[in-house]
Amino acid sequence: MPQIDLSSVNPIEMIKGYHARFIHTEHMTLNFLEVEAGAVVPEHSHPHEQVSIVTEGEFELTVAGEPMRFGPGKVIVIPSNVKHSGIAITDCKLLDVFNPVREDYRALSEKK
Amino acid sequence: MPQIDLSSVNPIEMIKGYHARFIHTEHMTLNFLEVEAGAVVPEHSHPHEQVSIVTEGEFELTVAGEPMRFGPGKVIVIPSNVKHSGIAITDCKLLDVFNPVREDYRALSEKK
Repeated sequence: MPQIDLSSVNPIEMIKGYHARFIHTEHMTLNFLEVEAGAVVPEHSHPHEQVSIVTEGEFELTVAGEPMRFGPGKVIVIPSNVKHSGIAITDCKLLDVFNPVREDYRALSEKK
Repeated sequence: MPQIDLSSVNPIEMIKGYHARFIHTEHMTLNFLEVEAGAVVPEHSHPHEQVSIVTEGEFELTVAGEPMRFGPGKVIVIPSNVKHSGIAITDCKLLDVFNPVREDYRALSEKK
């Protein structure tokens, strides 16, 4: 910190097809993801607020039962504790931002 | 919410050459910026933690007196209350993420 080169952050395959680079700040976690077409994240929820953007490709998020396809230029906000799942429609790049820090992801980074 | 089309958010020229599209969630503010080459943001600070990324072009942030040029693939973290300023080296697109919400920016959005 304060400047981080993403290429220096080791990717972690957190779920099959989801290659994650995490940056943890004092209050937020940023997850820069490269996702393989067809890769699925099962339904889950967490107390952290989440904002998702797609920088390349197309992804489908289902939030509280409502499927939404999105690509560059769209933003999805997932409030605290709302169930969501996802599938990559194409190979894609995502950025997920969380508040507060995802301590579970930090533990994952430190384990690997 | 939960899905927002950025093209439906009216840009605000918050500083000369800084065209901002704000998204305010419960705990975060995202500022999608289009910046004109040469446009300057004077030194300032705020209690909000800030994370900045560049999605297109090149930008120079000076954080606590240290200048850092960055483009896609780099992330800059500005801790709470640390002084920073900036200049666009080229026309560029930035994303600034803040926690907590920038109520000052929300007021700006509502005023215009």
